Amino acid sequence: MEEVEVAPPQANEVRVKILFTSLCHTDVYFWEAKGQNPLFPRIYGHEAGGIVESVGEGVTDLKPGDHVLPVFTGECKECAHCKSEESNMCDLLRINTDRGVMLNDGKSRFSINGKPIYHFVGTSTFSEYTVIHVGCLAKINPLAPLDKVCVLSCGISTGLGATLNVAKPAKGSTVAVFGLGAVGLAAAEGARIAGASRIIGVDLNSNRFEEAKKFGATEFVNPKDYNKPVQEVIAEMTNGGVDRSVECTGNIDAMISAFECVHDGWGVAVLVGVPHKDAVFKTHPMNLLNERTLKGTFFGNYKPRSDLPSVVEKYMSKELEVEKFITHTVPFSEINKAFEYMLRGEGLRCIIRMEE
Amino acid sequence: MEEVEVAPPQANEVRVKILFTSLCHTDVYFWEAKGQNPLFPRIYGHEAGGIVESVGEGVTDLKPGDHVLPVFTGECKECAHCKSEESNMCDLLRINTDRGVMLNDGKSRFSINGKPIYHFVGTSTFSEYTVIHVGCLAKINPLAPLDKVCVLSCGISTGLGATLNVAKPAKGSTVAVFGLGAVGLAAAEGARIAGASRIIGVDLNSNRFEEAKKFGATEFVNPKDYNKPVQEVIAEMTNGGVDRSVECTGNIDAMISAFECVHDGWGVAVLVGVPHKDAVFKTHPMNLLNERTLKGTFFGNYKPRSDLPSVVEKYMSKELEVEKFITHTVPFSEINKAFEYMLRGEGLRCIIRMEE
Ligand SMILES: NC(=O)c1ccc[n+]([C@@H]2O[C@H](COP(=O)([O-])OP(=O)(O)OC[C@H]3O[C@@H](n4cnc5c(N)ncnc54)[C@H](O)[C@@H]3O)[C@@H](O)[C@H]2O)c1
Ligand SMILES: NC(=O)c1ccc[n+]([C@@H]2O[C@H](COP(=O)([O-])OP(=O)(O)OC[C@H]3O[C@@H](n4cnc5c(N)ncnc54)[C@H](O)[C@@H]3O)[C@@H](O)[C@H]2O)c1
Ligand SMILES: [Zn+2]
Ligand SMILES: [Zn+2]
Ligand SMILES: [Zn+2]
Ligand SMILES: [Zn+2]
Repeated sequence: MEEVEVAPPQANEVRVKILFTSLCHTDVYFWEAKGQNPLFPRIYGHEAGGIVESVGEGVTDLKPGDHVLPVFTGECKECAHCKSEESNMCDLLRINTDRGVMLNDGKSRFSINGKPIYHFVGTSTFSEYTVIHVGCLAKINPLAPLDKVCVLSCGISTGLGATLNVAKPAKGSTVAVFGLGAVGLAAAEGARIAGASRIIGVDLNSNRFEEAKKFGATEFVNPKDYNKPVQEVIAEMTNGGVDRSVECTGNIDAMISAFECVHDGWGVAVLVGVPHKDAVFKTHPMNLLNERTLKGTFFGNYKPRSDLPSVVEKYMSKELEVEKFITHTVPFSEINKAFEYMLRGEGLRCIIRMEE
Repeated sequence: MEEVEVAPPQANEVRVKILFTSLCHTDVYFWEAKGQNPLFPRIYGHEAGGIVESVGEGVTDLKPGDHVLPVFTGECKECAHCKSEESNMCDLLRINTDRGVMLNDGKSRFSINGKPIYHFVGTSTFSEYTVIHVGCLAKINPLAPLDKVCVLSCGISTGLGATLNVAKPAKGSTVAVFGLGAVGLAAAEGARIAGASRIIGVDLNSNRFEEAKKFGATEFVNPKDYNKPVQEVIAEMTNGGVDRSVECTGNIDAMISAFECVHDGWGVAVLVGVPHKDAVFKTHPMNLLNERTLKGTFFGNYKPRSDLPSVVEKYMSKELEVEKFITHTVPFSEINKAFEYMLRGEGLRCIIRMEE
């Protein structure tokens, strides 16, 4: 815990008072800084909910008091991606894990005795105040409880959107979800909301199965229990394959299985997990020619500013259940406990309360 | 040329008088019988137009005098694929190149002095009369000239449908077509009909480019002219990639390039070519996670009975130009000329007139 100075927002920036934040694997991954260029000292944190404290020049969409969710990827509303109905991969504000500074002046807004502290994915929510580009803030319903909806700013929306926006299972269809971490459980929750009749959870860790039932999963397959490829096991369970599959592991073998387990003629597989940089996706092209579709998604294809407010509304209307994802809560002073839970694989999301 | 006896149609079968037929690579491929189980003697031919002569028991959709296009793959209207809006891969009547007999009794309807002659893909149109399962016949507008629309029963519809039904380019979008044989030119024709603003033809044989202009292609790339992957060349030409690509080569490298040349965020690649049985499609999964879509199609996703009549109507309304594909015509007695044209790579389609 350190006392940090947070400079006022510059053009197109907003200073946000963070009320609740949570921890996601990505924070831990970049904090461990294995295999990347380390950029320290740095303030982590990217799943959060807060209130606008002040706005910089040119910011017209937000004003002090607005409730917002910071997002690690943005929406400038002007580039080809933002103008496309299909893409959410904004050219200007797409996630950048190497940059530790603000776009406006290439400098940090955090400092201790004049020495800069770097930003993380444009959000840095492990701080009572942070400065964020206006394009990375979703303005949400002020009635939504920030201690709940804060978890919608990363993994949960990613999994949910992968199913609802990309896989789009029809009511009554069969869906396989590979990987039952928070992202995969959110993908299962999406399948439940869409009215899937069978939701098959696939994980190498059978301990995940009990939890997954709460998210609508109806059947479970641990690939380790079979001496044939899991895609064959699933094809046998489903008369030729599932209608949709969503891969949320980051493991290349799971990606290939997720693709090959969908039904010919109409099956759609959606990849979500972030793969190893040397991974190669391999399949026989006949699997494609037999009318299977393979897609990938980033942040569940949600455009942060345009679409995230409606995800919050799904929670407000009780269609989406967010509480199930929140397994722990700690005050900011005990943030290290959140890291411990995650490193031990305990629970799903630990909410960190910024005020004692 | 031999005199063959053609038995009457049995249950769910139709005897058709063939008026015009044309030759496609698939006939030549199975006639050469390299790498497959040879099944001889056999009557080839699967692109054709004819008139119903008589119908077997249970056939209610067709009556003598109806104009029909035989199709190498069928539509039973009862299986899960036929009932799905997305698939055309009928469980009962899906193409089967190994079967040389009719489904009803497992026997052939062709014979010479009692010795059976095998069928080919359920059509065997290199005969004045042939017997075909009712599910493999599209009933078309009797005003449509059979000497033109006969070419719509295989490759032309395959390429056209790959673009119009699967890639679905928006008006004004950019489309790359890999392979400028009859199938690729039909894919380009589909892009022209859809109103694409740029249609980039890609072929290893630059002789194809002049012809391709007639089918709407606006630019050409021969991968041999560059010392970098063609997907990079195309990305540079199009500010990051084309909106849609359609692969019509059967070559695995072209399949990979066709996928990797589409724009991130919204690009869709469609595979059409039939690959070598040992081919492996390989790509880095990040190409998918960056929101590209990869699909394959079979017969352009057209359901033969439900959809082919409307393709004929596209020709009748002058939206689709079929004449461009027809480069030669010969009488049946000179069918070997059609084989020579194809083997020499001359022209696109040679119409074979069954009546002198
Ligand atoms: N695309 C995006 O926008 C985005 C956003 C957030 C997270 N992610 C990615 O989503 C993935 C999942 O995230 P998470 O937080 O839920 O991770 P997690 O580690 O909590 O869960 C992953 C689960 O996958 C299981 N698994 C691993 N290999 C498997 C295999 N071969 N077969 C079956 N199950 C397997 C693990 O046992 C684990 O339960 C990660 O790759 C993460 O980087 C992507
Ligand atoms: N899926 C289906 O339903 C269906 C139906 C009919 C045909 N097909 C397939 O479509 C493909 C095309 O058929 P066609 O009759 O037009 O064949 P074709 O041989 O007339 O044309 C193929 C073209 O591709 C070019 N080519 C080959 N390798 C290439 C590469 N690496 N890069 C760029 N160009 C390359 C060739 O020079 C040639 O001009 C074949 O594989 C055929 O089997 C599929
Ligand atoms: Zn943008
Ligand atoms: Zn995250
Ligand atoms: Zn069928
Ligand atoms: Zn053909």
